[in-house]
Amino acid sequence: MIMIIKQGTLPEQIEELRAEVISWGLQPQEIKGESTFMLGLVGDTSQVSEEALMRYSCVERVMKVSEPYKLAGRRFHPDDTVVEINNRKIGGGSFAVIAGPCSVESEDQILSVAHDVALSGAQFLRGGAFKPRTSPYSFQGLGLEGLELLKVAREKTGLPIVTEIMSPEYVDVFIEDVDVIQIGARNMQNFPLLTEVGRTGKPVLLKRGPSCTIDELLMAAEYILYAGESQVIVCERGIRTFETATRNTLDLSAVPVIQEKSHLPVIIDPSHGTGHSSLVPSMALAAVAAGADGLIIEVHNQPEKALCDGPQSITPIVFDHLMKQINCLREALMTEDGGLDDGNAEPFRRTA
Amino acid sequence: MIMIIKQGTLPEQIEELRAEVISWGLQPQEIKGESTFMLGLVGDTSQVSEEALMRYSCVERVMKVSEPYKLAGRRFHPDDTVVEINNRKIGGGSFAVIAGPCSVESEDQILSVAHDVALSGAQFLRGGAFKPRTSPYSFQGLGLEGLELLKVAREKTGLPIVTEIMSPEYVDVFIEDVDVIQIGARNMQNFPLLTEVGRTGKPVLLKRGPSCTIDELLMAAEYILYAGESQVIVCERGIRTFETATRNTLDLSAVPVIQEKSHLPVIIDPSHGTGHSSLVPSMALAAVAAGADGLIIEVHNQPEKALCDGPQSITPIVFDHLMKQINCLREALMTEDGGLDDGNAEPFRRTA
Amino acid sequence: MIMIIKQGTLPEQIEELRAEVISWGLQPQEIKGESTFMLGLVGDTSQVSEEALMRYSCVERVMKVSEPYKLAGRRFHPDDTVVEINNRKIGGGSFAVIAGPCSVESEDQILSVAHDVALSGAQFLRGGAFKPRTSPYSFQGLGLEGLELLKVAREKTGLPIVTEIMSPEYVDVFIEDVDVIQIGARNMQNFPLLTEVGRTGKPVLLKRGPSCTIDELLMAAEYILYAGESQVIVCERGIRTFETATRNTLDLSAVPVIQEKSHLPVIIDPSHGTGHSSLVPSMALAAVAAGADGLIIEVHNQPEKALCDGPQSITPIVFDHLMKQINCLREALMTEDGGLDDGNAEPFRRTA
Amino acid sequence: MIMIIKQGTLPEQIEELRAEVISWGLQPQEIKGESTFMLGLVGDTSQVSEEALMRYSCVERVMKVSEPYKLAGRRFHPDDTVVEINNRKIGGGSFAVIAGPCSVESEDQILSVAHDVALSGAQFLRGGAFKPRTSPYSFQGLGLEGLELLKVAREKTGLPIVTEIMSPEYVDVFIEDVDVIQIGARNMQNFPLLTEVGRTGKPVLLKRGPSCTIDELLMAAEYILYAGESQVIVCERGIRTFETATRNTLDLSAVPVIQEKSHLPVIIDPSHGTGHSSLVPSMALAAVAAGADGLIIEVHNQPEKALCDGPQSITPIVFDHLMKQINCLREALMTEDGGLDDGNAEPFRRTA
Repeated sequence: MIMIIKQGTLPEQIEELRAEVISWGLQPQEIKGESTFMLGLVGDTSQVSEEALMRYSCVERVMKVSEPYKLAGRRFHPDDTVVEINNRKIGGGSFAVIAGPCSVESEDQILSVAHDVALSGAQFLRGGAFKPRTSPYSFQGLGLEGLELLKVAREKTGLPIVTEIMSPEYVDVFIEDVDVIQIGARNMQNFPLLTEVGRTGKPVLLKRGPSCTIDELLMAAEYILYAGESQVIVCERGIRTFETATRNTLDLSAVPVIQEKSHLPVIIDPSHGTGHSSLVPSMALAAVAAGADGLIIEVHNQPEKALCDGPQSITPIVFDHLMKQINCLREALMTEDGGLDDGNAEPFRRTA
Repeated sequence: MIMIIKQGTLPEQIEELRAEVISWGLQPQEIKGESTFMLGLVGDTSQVSEEALMRYSCVERVMKVSEPYKLAGRRFHPDDTVVEINNRKIGGGSFAVIAGPCSVESEDQILSVAHDVALSGAQFLRGGAFKPRTSPYSFQGLGLEGLELLKVAREKTGLPIVTEIMSPEYVDVFIEDVDVIQIGARNMQNFPLLTEVGRTGKPVLLKRGPSCTIDELLMAAEYILYAGESQVIVCERGIRTFETATRNTLDLSAVPVIQEKSHLPVIIDPSHGTGHSSLVPSMALAAVAAGADGLIIEVHNQPEKALCDGPQSITPIVFDHLMKQINCLREALMTEDGGLDDGNAEPFRRTA
Repeated sequence: MIMIIKQGTLPEQIEELRAEVISWGLQPQEIKGESTFMLGLVGDTSQVSEEALMRYSCVERVMKVSEPYKLAGRRFHPDDTVVEINNRKIGGGSFAVIAGPCSVESEDQILSVAHDVALSGAQFLRGGAFKPRTSPYSFQGLGLEGLELLKVAREKTGLPIVTEIMSPEYVDVFIEDVDVIQIGARNMQNFPLLTEVGRTGKPVLLKRGPSCTIDELLMAAEYILYAGESQVIVCERGIRTFETATRNTLDLSAVPVIQEKSHLPVIIDPSHGTGHSSLVPSMALAAVAAGADGLIIEVHNQPEKALCDGPQSITPIVFDHLMKQINCLREALMTEDGGLDDGNAEPFRRTA
Repeated sequence: MIMIIKQGTLPEQIEELRAEVISWGLQPQEIKGESTFMLGLVGDTSQVSEEALMRYSCVERVMKVSEPYKLAGRRFHPDDTVVEINNRKIGGGSFAVIAGPCSVESEDQILSVAHDVALSGAQFLRGGAFKPRTSPYSFQGLGLEGLELLKVAREKTGLPIVTEIMSPEYVDVFIEDVDVIQIGARNMQNFPLLTEVGRTGKPVLLKRGPSCTIDELLMAAEYILYAGESQVIVCERGIRTFETATRNTLDLSAVPVIQEKSHLPVIIDPSHGTGHSSLVPSMALAAVAAGADGLIIEVHNQPEKALCDGPQSITPIVFDHLMKQINCLREALMTEDGGLDDGNAEPFRRTA
């Protein structure tokens, strides 16, 4: 950390600041110019916040040198984390697709979609039982009944289930029933929920908030890791920008950026990322080419009748075709010339 | 609501759509051009979502005509809501200032600040007991002990207390101890929390999420109103943009926009809105001139020692001077020529 | 176009409005509900602006039904435009890579890079002679001397040259010397320049402004098309958002969106789009998978000595490896199962 | 400037970097920790760009300590610049209002509006002769004929005229005819135009680009100052964000931020800043309270017939009432307790 000291600061003030910094176990080092004076803090600064330093009236600005996350960062964990659920792996070269409807609507619906996506090669089933909706007048999900239907679908298809938790009160039920607990974008900074979920011992799928930076996403992951859970998958699902042609702007560069900064697997949600079913396949393929560790895709047997997010859901037929394309693409990327996983690819992949 | 129908749609498809719409109690009316065909839906469309209509494959686009909120909107509630707590009013011409530290740190601190802001004329005391922090390593607030200290401060100064709730599990304690329950920006779309808090019978201060539109803020207020609570104050506290000179970009035009759209009182938080204490007074005065119904301002007796948000906290001395300026400004705005509250002001204030 | 009429509007006012609209050659059609009244305008509304209608005090809101661009839109030009320069094609299934340094610095530099990228398979050479720089103290380009060096490089390698024009005064020189005239992101809405360049008879590469919507990009293309030039390539190069991990946020979904809306070829600039050379290859591959018609990539023989944009320039070695990957990827996408160009791919590509 | 050196950098590489830095007349100073190594550059770094340093492969990151602008910054010019035109001052405590129609449409129109705003107390007349329009089909302004009409209006009312230049080719005409040359938001980074206008010897009104940061605005001003012109007024006119309730989001905090960073006068455009005439008066008053040095406001005698920007134009009657309110507000702010200009106000105003 570097502190820029204000012009006109008295030597006594600097002395006081130095003493304080030393009392924190850090070592201050000076850079002096004609019109600038800086103090560099050497040592373990992970517990020191910028704002703690900004409180001193002689400090003009504080600049961070290293990332604020320790557990989520690659610096102390150079190897990729591989999340493994029922022998299905995500991360470290393993790729997985999570598919299913936005929300569980009925036994027929969830069984039909689960069956279809399993046949096409999806490794996980998604489906919302509790739905965060902008309007109190919209369908809010089937709740516990929805969880029961997901369990039936898991039994019939063998697909592990991924579903969203919205409130700490349901943590016990989720521990019992669910394979991967999803934290939705709107709850990315619901810190009590992150902590509760981090204590369950269950793998977590953490979605990026639509106006959160990548660093904030990794700090939210840090909450979960700090609470004890190491199996965390992060998901880019579109950020909020001025563009209105798409529901969100899918930030695909988050894939290589997160892979540089963190060891956690990162997946892409092209459904929320675009909001239009016609855009989902191209963005899914782009995510694969960008090196994502997986995808989460909304599939509905009758998008025009969906109670939620119909316009961004693709049909099982489109999904089936897309899965074939994904496999074809991954194969191409893994062959010698284009190999994402061989040594040649290193220059433009992870920097670890 | 208007539906644009895709070119090449068959008459049967349109017939099916018309039948469906009629079954919802709505009346479809047609607009036909050479290359365009639209259906306007007449009737109570508040329960009809855009996406419900987008599901139909023959629908190209849906355009809303009226706002999606009924309870929060001015259309059916033309008169301003006046929130009243212990004889202090906010809204409908009444102006109030909520002041205090970002977080409660000790009995000395909160009593000292409470005493100072009361003397300067603040009507409410703010102070966080539970703090949402980006990093798990930052100070998380004193929790229940913080609430106790706020109660002591209330007893000594007579100021009603405003403090943030982060999790439904504390609702009962807040009902008992707190005068105004604050929903923080990060929880603006924590829908289970909105509903729980809306059932407490306590006035609510709802902060706008940093990447939420004004319509989404009013939809979040709608959740609280729908759950039963009518005493809701909304607060603009800065939105996230590309500009980095300020912590957030304070959207002051939200004041007249919200006053046009809604009957709820709207206040401004210049502390989070700017992130720098040197900018707080000018933005507070600007908020008054813009017609805000109140302010919430962070005041700390020793900003350089604050455990949270020190850089944006002003001292009691600066606050005292600011309160004098605010009063002077409000007086000027209420005199004949510049009167915000007289008939002449109407052309540029509320449209109700 | 639909006009929502304000509540309380008098019948005479509506009559006046109807008469006006009819005088423009349009036909007004009514939609009447209990609390809403709308007028739909049927006919050729391409010359009618929203604001022209908003001027009427009885109009609450105007909603556009069709896009404002006629020449750039797909509606009246369903077939892809193929831009062809010296037998090299972009668009309509043809893919091309434009590569070279950010700016021309010396004869050695441009010849060396031109030679390398030609060998690796690039179809065009890029290089800035006139450079728009945020600071007046930064290198501003070699100007006319830079153009001369580009011509030498073209002669030696056979690669047509693409370079940016910044001011109408150089139009004549560009007509003489350049193969594709580039309009940079900062000049996307420099309307006199768009018009001047549209009159040159030269193909144009138009870059999206960092805070311009896709519709605004297509309107800027409309200026060029309206001035007479039909050979226009549009380029997505990252938009400005709150995220700071990348220089811009590359909006890859612009590729399928533009392909739905417009017949013009669309290419991607992963160099400006990310700002970091380590991210360029993954985003280039992602662009190919998303269906882009081409790429423009910054390549420098000594990025650490580059006078401009060194951090986002890749070396000729990395570029060569990337070109192999791109070819491998395109081949995979064109084979039967994953074929971007066969009939099966239609559901998720262009809607024309 | 601080350079963070990558882990694993060899001593020789650092030595080479040190030598290079010394060859630029700078002095490198080291900060060494267990896992970090930094070089601070001491001396005049105003000509050193971040990217020049980022080119070295051993440099992980570069952090600026001081602002990149010398002429526009307050550091070397602590006193406010006061722009003076025909005895009318802006800046340094002097406040001025520029008013008039978006575009000059006819002699009757411009004379009528000019007469009205002069009577209400405006100090300058605005009016566009050359109009940058998103669509080639919109009214593009009267061009040179518009300039002539502005001159007539100036002669009749005595108001100096402010109008926008769009292309360097008209610089000579503007020198002859215009009192203040406006650079519009879309041309804020049209660097050849900035330089040309900076050489005219005419005062310049520079508008902030809708997606440009305050630092970029001041760098654009630096171009003009560097070209020779010292009379520069900067103008905040709304930035582009995700919010759609307003045309732009007016960033009022730019007023105190710019006043801290720069000595140039800063004015506010509440018309473009909001896009709705009903919001203009509250934002104009807010700008005054925030300490702006002036306002630029669109006034039209018949907004519903305006050829451009009618929805955001206020009528002469509303303008007249607003001017009375502004005067009343400024008086209140200048009296003892609320005085913006007395010593007490210092803590929250300019830091110079």
